[in-house]
Amino acid sequence: MAKEQLFISRVKDIYRLNGIRGHLGWDQETIMPKGGAESRSDILSWLAAEVHKRMTDPELKQLISELAESGTDQDLSSNLREMKREVDKALLLPESFVQEFAKARSEALLTWQKARQESDFSLFQSSLENLVEMTRKKIEYLPKKDTPYDTLLDEYEVGMTVADYDELFEGLRVRLVPLLAKIMEAKKNMSIPKLPSEMEFSEQAQTRFCQKVSEAMGFDFDYGRMDASTHPFSAGLWKGDTRFTTRFDEKDPFSCLYAVMHETGHALYEQGLHPEHSLTPRGSAISLGVHESQSRFWENQIGRTSEFWEVALPWFKEEFPDSPDWTSAELNLIANQVDTSFIRVEADEVTYNLHIMLRYEIEKKIFNEGLKVSEIPKVWNQMFKDWFGITPSNDTEGCLQDIHWSMSAFGYFPTYTLGNLYASQLMNKIDEELGSVSEMTKSGDWSKMLRWLKEKIHEKGSLLTPSELIESATGKPPTSDDFLDYLEEKYGKLYSLS
Amino acid sequence: MAKEQLFISRVKDIYRLNGIRGHLGWDQETIMPKGGAESRSDILSWLAAEVHKRMTDPELKQLISELAESGTDQDLSSNLREMKREVDKALLLPESFVQEFAKARSEALLTWQKARQESDFSLFQSSLENLVEMTRKKIEYLPKKDTPYDTLLDEYEVGMTVADYDELFEGLRVRLVPLLAKIMEAKKNMSIPKLPSEMEFSEQAQTRFCQKVSEAMGFDFDYGRMDASTHPFSAGLWKGDTRFTTRFDEKDPFSCLYAVMHETGHALYEQGLHPEHSLTPRGSAISLGVHESQSRFWENQIGRTSEFWEVALPWFKEEFPDSPDWTSAELNLIANQVDTSFIRVEADEVTYNLHIMLRYEIEKKIFNEGLKVSEIPKVWNQMFKDWFGITPSNDTEGCLQDIHWSMSAFGYFPTYTLGNLYASQLMNKIDEELGSVSEMTKSGDWSKMLRWLKEKIHEKGSLLTPSELIESATGKPPTSDDFLDYLEEKYGKLYSLS
Repeated sequence: MAKEQLFISRVKDIYRLNGIRGHLGWDQETIMPKGGAESRSDILSWLAAEVHKRMTDPELKQLISELAESGTDQDLSSNLREMKREVDKALLLPESFVQEFAKARSEALLTWQKARQESDFSLFQSSLENLVEMTRKKIEYLPKKDTPYDTLLDEYEVGMTVADYDELFEGLRVRLVPLLAKIMEAKKNMSIPKLPSEMEFSEQAQTRFCQKVSEAMGFDFDYGRMDASTHPFSAGLWKGDTRFTTRFDEKDPFSCLYAVMHETGHALYEQGLHPEHSLTPRGSAISLGVHESQSRFWENQIGRTSEFWEVALPWFKEEFPDSPDWTSAELNLIANQVDTSFIRVEADEVTYNLHIMLRYEIEKKIFNEGLKVSEIPKVWNQMFKDWFGITPSNDTEGCLQDIHWSMSAFGYFPTYTLGNLYASQLMNKIDEELGSVSEMTKSGDWSKMLRWLKEKIHEKGSLLTPSELIESATGKPPTSDDFLDYLEEKYGKLYSLS
Repeated sequence: MAKEQLFISRVKDIYRLNGIRGHLGWDQETIMPKGGAESRSDILSWLAAEVHKRMTDPELKQLISELAESGTDQDLSSNLREMKREVDKALLLPESFVQEFAKARSEALLTWQKARQESDFSLFQSSLENLVEMTRKKIEYLPKKDTPYDTLLDEYEVGMTVADYDELFEGLRVRLVPLLAKIMEAKKNMSIPKLPSEMEFSEQAQTRFCQKVSEAMGFDFDYGRMDASTHPFSAGLWKGDTRFTTRFDEKDPFSCLYAVMHETGHALYEQGLHPEHSLTPRGSAISLGVHESQSRFWENQIGRTSEFWEVALPWFKEEFPDSPDWTSAELNLIANQVDTSFIRVEADEVTYNLHIMLRYEIEKKIFNEGLKVSEIPKVWNQMFKDWFGITPSNDTEGCLQDIHWSMSAFGYFPTYTLGNLYASQLMNKIDEELGSVSEMTKSGDWSKMLRWLKEKIHEKGSLLTPSELIESATGKPPTSDDFLDYLEEKYGKLYSLS
């Protein structure tokens, strides 16, 4: 018992330091004055080293080994399982390397922001080269897998490999490509309402509208914040203090709305974690894929439906009284317009996974085939042209759009696709257990769904592995069937496909 | 040399942890959602314990002793001097006590905010009792001085005692009381312009106006932020990232303006510290008294003059076009109105030190004479009536107005008076070395004064003790003469006293 307490206390110290890293990272991306960049980079790097020092303390490793032999308690087992994996990994990375890497990431975030603002990849290139170089080094430090990129994929969703994703993406492609072709054909004969180009949607009105939606989803602003940042993100900083961000486009309120629904989905997961297990893996989200299932469920399965728009229409009209007199069905059509466009986070559900596949293929090229960083914009644009039929007019529309590479999060993107798959499975199970999701959405009272997600997913934290968790919640292992069925049915109706 | 590096590296680790405490404290008082209170209290308490652990590490004490014998370098000496004092103190306080104390402070801040909002001392009483009890315990842990309160006074301005302050305050009283009486008499025959009661000064316009003033003082918003909080404060969080706060009263733009000038004064000190010595005492402010000299210099010696208002008048008119057509002299008269009022931070320069003396006397009663916390509101209001002739109508106007006690900063207030004295000495020296401060103020170019302060005060950090620093900058040891002469001359003119 004393050993368990000692173990948990060490784990909590590490989680506290990571909480501080998260907080200072949130601050850096939302409100930090630019003069703070250098010292922010210093403190983040110092914190990374402090965490590393504690992760690699032989006594922690010793405690894990000793407790693993005795334990039968499920909470403890999950904490041991998760900590063991992280500790084993940390022991393979030298402290100086970890510190240097954190510093490089913190600097890269700033050069990426600048490059993105000025649509100039060359401003980011050397930072990115540095990160790729360091990531290659990191792969060498870690246990060898079938391919170098496998090591990265496993970091973000344990157990997933190039072989898995190659197969998965091929399966998706087989049904998505014909669906997209049918939709594009059907669109030719449809008139879809458009945002009037002269209209401005003020930041204030968008903020009020989106806060109302976020609250309706169940986000409690006494326990969190919404701010603006270049790239929307969510951070479960502290128990009782969950923050997410969005961005504003005065020409397009949908960009902000769906960012808010997406990030609120993430934030609700954080707010729903088990408070008794705070600052341990057991009280933390299990994986990126599962996290993304929560954001996508709210963004798409709830938010991109005409039932949602029946609820949100009066709020929309209140905040944007000058907008055309759209019906909820028209707003839904605008929100679900399928098109080949440049920006992943604004992509519709049908093309979204093509954006993911493109990034996956480029990352695979970088780490498995030695693609040079300087070649990325050219390769990106060429692949984009081949797959989508259009070419980004600048790097901000292309390879600079995502924050991930500036954080060296290579291997992260494919988890978004996993999230889409899980979200459809969850929707089907909710339909089965609680009755029609559409009816509940239309009622404007979404609390039952949130309670279900809290009980089946959020409160479970890291008790189960991702695939165990999905299976325990939905009754079947992860599959792409539910997602593809969902898309074909939804877009079949929307675009009257035969 | 290796030992010096080791010492500095340990000092920097402690300063980094304190930087994080400062950052999370800033966040708590400005933007934290209320649900974050419990976990914020947890992390601040944990950080306090982490700092304490490092301060009391025997190896640090050992390094200080060994280096003290060898060192002649001035930078190192000042670092050793300051660290030795803090380490010696920390070694006397048990870690569990320090942690508990930090937690109590963090909780008290929240109950104070609530009590202040609801003007109800009883909501704060038990938190304050707890802090007073713990402060008494702390006094017992530390070396015995002439009286218990002496221990606290020494914490905030090294070397200052009850005997020193009693004498100082008596000296001030002897000349301030007749000055105040003369002014109150003269006022009867004067008509002083007033803020029209129906006018509203919007937060947005006040923000723009105050930012302009802050920038004119030399604050660079690329290296800092201005936010809102219940009690204005300034925090030099990180090199390149200095943040201050203000508050808004839509009926009175002067409240915000002088808070901003005051806090900008503090912030300029932080921005002017020697960057090479960042994260060590040598690169940090030496004392609260000296810090306050910077804030008061800008707030009063510059800001409360008709020369300042000649510069600020066009900005004022631009932001508040509906205000009466005041001249700079009239604005200056409003800004320098002497009156017996309730709120310390809004008090004029003549009555300000009476507010300080009142708090000093109450703190002395608490720690040297056993005054009960529950009696504070009664004693406060009685003393206020005796000294100022008026009685606060509620606790927010009375003993709940300041944040200090909620942070257990007993012994802090008298340093404000020291700041006033130093500020007058600095003004006289600048007058002598750079030419008339009035003329420079009127020119609107205050950069020469800022450079002088940077060179003589800011960059020196903790190289010298407070009194050495004031003597080196002004040519004479700390004295109240310059301050009293300044007040008598300034208010003699303003109120045409004979």
